[in-house]
Amino acid sequence: MKFLVKKEDLYNGIKIVERATSMKALQPVLLNIYIETTENSSIKLVATDLDFTVITEVDAQIEEQGKITLPSKTLNEIVSKLGNKLIEFESEDETKVKIKCQNSKFEILGISANEFPQDSLKIELNEDNGFEIEMKPFVKAVRQAGFAAAGYEVSNLLSGIVCTFSDELLEIASTDGNRLARVREKISNKEQQTTQLIIPSRTLNEFIKMSAFLEDENIKIFTEKTRIIIKTEKTMTVSRLLEGQFPKYNQLIPSESPKKAVVNVAQMSSALERAAIMVNEKTYIVKLEFSNNSLTMSADTPEAGKSEEKIDIDYTSEDLTIAFNYKYVLEALKNIEAEEVEIGLNTPLSATIFTPATEDDFVCLIMPVQIR
Amino acid sequence: MKFLVKKEDLYNGIKIVERATSMKALQPVLLNIYIETTENSSIKLVATDLDFTVITEVDAQIEEQGKITLPSKTLNEIVSKLGNKLIEFESEDETKVKIKCQNSKFEILGISANEFPQDSLKIELNEDNGFEIEMKPFVKAVRQAGFAAAGYEVSNLLSGIVCTFSDELLEIASTDGNRLARVREKISNKEQQTTQLIIPSRTLNEFIKMSAFLEDENIKIFTEKTRIIIKTEKTMTVSRLLEGQFPKYNQLIPSESPKKAVVNVAQMSSALERAAIMVNEKTYIVKLEFSNNSLTMSADTPEAGKSEEKIDIDYTSEDLTIAFNYKYVLEALKNIEAEEVEIGLNTPLSATIFTPATEDDFVCLIMPVQIR
Repeated sequence: MKFLVKKEDLYNGIKIVERATSMKALQPVLLNIYIETTENSSIKLVATDLDFTVITEVDAQIEEQGKITLPSKTLNEIVSKLGNKLIEFESEDETKVKIKCQNSKFEILGISANEFPQDSLKIELNEDNGFEIEMKPFVKAVRQAGFAAAGYEVSNLLSGIVCTFSDELLEIASTDGNRLARVREKISNKEQQTTQLIIPSRTLNEFIKMSAFLEDENIKIFTEKTRIIIKTEKTMTVSRLLEGQFPKYNQLIPSESPKKAVVNVAQMSSALERAAIMVNEKTYIVKLEFSNNSLTMSADTPEAGKSEEKIDIDYTSEDLTIAFNYKYVLEALKNIEAEEVEIGLNTPLSATIFTPATEDDFVCLIMPVQIR
Repeated sequence: MKFLVKKEDLYNGIKIVERATSMKALQPVLLNIYIETTENSSIKLVATDLDFTVITEVDAQIEEQGKITLPSKTLNEIVSKLGNKLIEFESEDETKVKIKCQNSKFEILGISANEFPQDSLKIELNEDNGFEIEMKPFVKAVRQAGFAAAGYEVSNLLSGIVCTFSDELLEIASTDGNRLARVREKISNKEQQTTQLIIPSRTLNEFIKMSAFLEDENIKIFTEKTRIIIKTEKTMTVSRLLEGQFPKYNQLIPSESPKKAVVNVAQMSSALERAAIMVNEKTYIVKLEFSNNSLTMSADTPEAGKSEEKIDIDYTSEDLTIAFNYKYVLEALKNIEAEEVEIGLNTPLSATIFTPATEDDFVCLIMPVQIR
């Protein structure tokens, strides 16, 4: 194997695939990046943790065909520290590669490409089965409404983010049972029937990070048995899908709230952060008192002390005291891209709705906590 | 107790004393900051871990005298998150304080001031015993030549930084037995005999960090039995001194080296960092080969691979191969404030000297490692 590659191109390729290298290496080869020359003046990079695979192509000048796997960490370190020049890779046998760049020389030991999970290398797509959407609104929507998913547990549907692709609308939602986030974005997806996919949140979170290194305008989504493949021009992200009946979350969101408050987002966030200094670190409960154009937020921990923060808001309904895990409220506020949030209230035990006081179609629902 | 204090002033005061709060709290009160009103429109803040104490004064408007100790972490968090306004502190009893600032209210539980180590509060100085020097050159010199001290071990002299204050010269040095750093700075210290003090490196490292919050031009240094007190207008840093005979380090530094190389510092640092990617993480050994205007740096680890970096340098003596813990070399280079470093060599087992290729009076000596 022998090829020449631009540092910048290779660095970008490594940044894209490395997200799939295994964290805890059951097999040492899963810590490695698979590198193979292709027939089209490029090299193919692959990383996988068996659940999740990323494959990308990087332009290269091939002098001799071949393949190998190299430790992701070492490769990353070397490439990131080299000057912005051409890098030469040359291997004489299937476990060793020589890397040269200007006055730098390395010899790294890898693992034979034959030990890499061969299933991860063969992704066959039926081009007709996919549908194309714009990448930016997809990434934005996942970032905004994917945070409420439950922690990563293999068998739990709630650890997924539910994505509904329909005619001209993309709906992304997630819920961990205590809170729910949903966003709707207009997209252009002309040829498409409605498809609902439950994608593991880890896959989408890694895809969001990876997308910073992708230059594509569109992504194409394929499903194949229980897998999803997100394809851009040079990159494929492959992940299992979650299967089952996701809760009918839209039914949980009340269309009208009997009481409404309009609150400045920045003011509420910073006051809530201060109030939370005194929060009980077992419960994270902060109490919110809505009363005659004012909101009082308070917390206390018997052995440490108390806090109380008061801000002016728009609220003219009858007084209401309600308590939340303050982290849920802060996270909802963080995802509201407007100056003001509209808080839809009902009783101290009803689901509470946080929406931007604009046209944006984003909603975060939080279940309150019973106090005393 | 009741007083009003500007947020900015109090924040600054907390940042100064908090460096002395104990990390591992043998006594809970050592996690707290002692606060006491004074007669001169100020409050006194004190923190100590028993070895190391910092006392500072902060301007305040006193309405009722009193004292208390409050948890450093909570106090810091509250004050840093409050707006830039007047903060009111009021306590009704000796373990509880109410804090108010605009629409924020807190009630924090503290520990009675009587439980705070009373020895740390009484520092009596004989103003005649001190000597004054400029703070900036002192901080700069400690930063440049204090890094070579041994790790913090109570009974080891080498964990100290040796400071020699003489007529118009300040000399700072440290060594851990494998390397040595020494710097000389001109200072104005007219009335002074030569004094040599071995100050725990922790004390000076904390003092350096703290100095960012001190506005003073000069510091005054007092010694009192086995303690040192570094005094500025409003702050006192008190620490034990190390006692014993520090190695006569100046005798270890050769005045002339038979072989000399002149090397670009930035070039050498980045090439060395790249070579070190393949370093054996048990030994950190990088081999340096000086030969006819070139320097080759190489490392290898049997199970991972090899690296080799070559740079152009000025070197016309006979070829020499020498090996070092590369971290020591990088740290020496980092403290050379010149474009080029002069490396003074002798044999592969002789102490090697790194000095700036300028007039700066800084020297770092590193002992090589025997290879093969």
